[in-house]
Amino acid sequence: MKDIKKVNYDGYKYIDGGVCAAKGFCANGLYSGIKENPSKKFDLCLVVSDVLCNAAGVFTQNKVQAAPVTVSKKHLEATGGKARAFILNSKNANACNPDGIEKSEKMCSLAAERLCIPSEQVLIAQTGVIGQTMPIEPIEDNIDSLVYGLSYDGNEKAAIAIMTTDTVKKEVAVEFTVGGKICRLGGMGKGSGMICPNMATTLNVITTDCAITSEVLKKALSDVVKITYNCLYIDGDQSTNDTCAVMANGLCGNDIIDTENEDYAVFKQALYIVMSNITKMLAKDGEGATKLLECNVSGAKTENDAQAIAKSVIASDLLKCAMFGEDANVGRIACAIGYADADFDITKFSVVLESDKGCVKFFENGAILPFSEEEAAVMLSDDEIKINVMLADGAEKATAWGCDLTYEYVKINGDYRT
Amino acid sequence: MKDIKKVNYDGYKYIDGGVCAAKGFCANGLYSGIKENPSKKFDLCLVVSDVLCNAAGVFTQNKVQAAPVTVSKKHLEATGGKARAFILNSKNANACNPDGIEKSEKMCSLAAERLCIPSEQVLIAQTGVIGQTMPIEPIEDNIDSLVYGLSYDGNEKAAIAIMTTDTVKKEVAVEFTVGGKICRLGGMGKGSGMICPNMATTLNVITTDCAITSEVLKKALSDVVKITYNCLYIDGDQSTNDTCAVMANGLCGNDIIDTENEDYAVFKQALYIVMSNITKMLAKDGEGATKLLECNVSGAKTENDAQAIAKSVIASDLLKCAMFGEDANVGRIACAIGYADADFDITKFSVVLESDKGCVKFFENGAILPFSEEEAAVMLSDDEIKINVMLADGAEKATAWGCDLTYEYVKINGDYRT
Repeated sequence: MKDIKKVNYDGYKYIDGGVCAAKGFCANGLYSGIKENPSKKFDLCLVVSDVLCNAAGVFTQNKVQAAPVTVSKKHLEATGGKARAFILNSKNANACNPDGIEKSEKMCSLAAERLCIPSEQVLIAQTGVIGQTMPIEPIEDNIDSLVYGLSYDGNEKAAIAIMTTDTVKKEVAVEFTVGGKICRLGGMGKGSGMICPNMATTLNVITTDCAITSEVLKKALSDVVKITYNCLYIDGDQSTNDTCAVMANGLCGNDIIDTENEDYAVFKQALYIVMSNITKMLAKDGEGATKLLECNVSGAKTENDAQAIAKSVIASDLLKCAMFGEDANVGRIACAIGYADADFDITKFSVVLESDKGCVKFFENGAILPFSEEEAAVMLSDDEIKINVMLADGAEKATAWGCDLTYEYVKINGDYRT
Repeated sequence: MKDIKKVNYDGYKYIDGGVCAAKGFCANGLYSGIKENPSKKFDLCLVVSDVLCNAAGVFTQNKVQAAPVTVSKKHLEATGGKARAFILNSKNANACNPDGIEKSEKMCSLAAERLCIPSEQVLIAQTGVIGQTMPIEPIEDNIDSLVYGLSYDGNEKAAIAIMTTDTVKKEVAVEFTVGGKICRLGGMGKGSGMICPNMATTLNVITTDCAITSEVLKKALSDVVKITYNCLYIDGDQSTNDTCAVMANGLCGNDIIDTENEDYAVFKQALYIVMSNITKMLAKDGEGATKLLECNVSGAKTENDAQAIAKSVIASDLLKCAMFGEDANVGRIACAIGYADADFDITKFSVVLESDKGCVKFFENGAILPFSEEEAAVMLSDDEIKINVMLADGAEKATAWGCDLTYEYVKINGDYRT
């Protein structure tokens, strides 16, 4: 049920392998015991490229930044956008700790020593409870096993190690052609609360064997983040740890992409496919979620107007509850459209809700239409619901993703630390 | 348990009477059957002054405005800020309906005819489901009983009639002296979901026998709304119907307040006392709430910075869940401080949580402190929790109010229409 329906794109083929799908990337994940855990769920992982990569990252905009965010930014700056490895852990966010930076640096250097590379070529991301001292011993005790166990099919272990309240691991990869060379781009992500627009996302690692400069990679990442992770809304909280980094090792052999040419467009579309699919996975597996919600706004004057409305609808707690209850309380959609910070004609919007089980028009010219409660109930009983808002003000459009608000969300978050 | 702890203010005495506390105001409420309802909960009410009042209102900033908002604004404009009566109903918001304006105007004229006053002297507010046709027959059938039943102690009936998912009625009144004359100011309000800063509030009626011009009344209302209702956060949804109007009939005999003099300051403080108490009542009775949360931010560079942080903390779904679970997951407070749109030094903030059962300091200089889980658990077991955030950037401060997020909120809103 947590599987999403993937959209197919011409010229791109979905493949297995996640962060190991691209040539020359190995990974590993294991249980280190950062927090005592009888189920021994993996909590530590490492992704390594055979050769030095061009790299780019986007990070949380929260002013309270966890230590790993500070350290990763510093490393990317020191190397001028290069990286060989990425170490990640769950079970502790290492945020708001007086010795946080020291611990994050130590984790990077522990990995760097075993890999015989400079510490600055290691990126780091951490997730878990904020404001608890990060124990370094579990990392020291397990770094050898972590490095020795690296393999070209270790992607699943890594994807599992970054999960927190996620119920499923999240991996996507595609194969495509750039300048006659077969390239691969894959990624893994973790959700699943504390997710809000205006930030990068939660933890995400994307790897590719395409050759591209750090500058151009950064541009592609920034553009695609805006229309994928930044349009994802679970609960409005912006984490202190959000990190999304891409590592490109160039091993597929294409001419390096150093400008926004045709090859760049092909690469950027691959990045979009992987990141939009991970976005939908994150939404569908939002804490306690039973339904994926997608709001498509069209006919807007500007893309900003369209995005503001799509995000406002997706973020409405009242609508999220109604969707959980499969209740066609669609007045709440009009209400959320109305308080969006957007310029549009309120006497002209239409609203259609659709799923694989049906399609019902609720609003026309800003006013409610009569509708069949039975048809609405059948349509809403699906686990992916599209809310389509048509304005009559222009040609711009945007999409935002989210999920319903459920008892389970409250339960998970009323007692997260135990 | 839904009672709030009232703060006492020198020179002001809490009295009974709600909207009938001030001289010359009568009210009534009854069940009209706007929506079939076996419990016959009151759904229609009327507040009337013996003489013409100076009046002022603040309304929702949602672009999708319900018909009663449009009509009340029009009436206030037509009369130059005068009113004799205020008609309100629950069970139907009369929003997004093609014939909404017509129905709201009809309700005003039905009341006006019986009261022998111009229709423009009647204000109107409506609350309930958005996008359902407003039936006019129940009003026509009951308008005579409603008017004939008006009495100087009808305030409770009126306060009950505007309740929707509120579990208790909300009334506050104070007595104070202006220019040697004893004045009274009282109000009623209704919550309890769809409440967010940046709007007036939900439905609120405030009456006073103080003499004050419409212009100066408007100024006082706008100022006080900013630091009371606009600092209240239940779920981030802004209603289409929010209305707060004050009617001042001058019957206490004071010299009319027509400028921001000493009398004005006394009057404004009375308005603050009534509105801040109603704000706390609305917060504590938020949908499904078990706890009142109050965030006090001090030491800010500007009042805007202080308010942004206070609202950000109060609005965090994750913190709201943790408070429900009585879990000292205080990293979420640092996180919410960090993503507030405010300018402050993140290495200097302190956080103390307190209730009548204890007081625990969790952060100093932006870093977590060791704390006793037992002490924290006892402190959090109270039903009113203060979250005090001390910055070290200046002398400005602000307060915001909210509540915890519970299973019950989800339940109520998963099935609101039935």
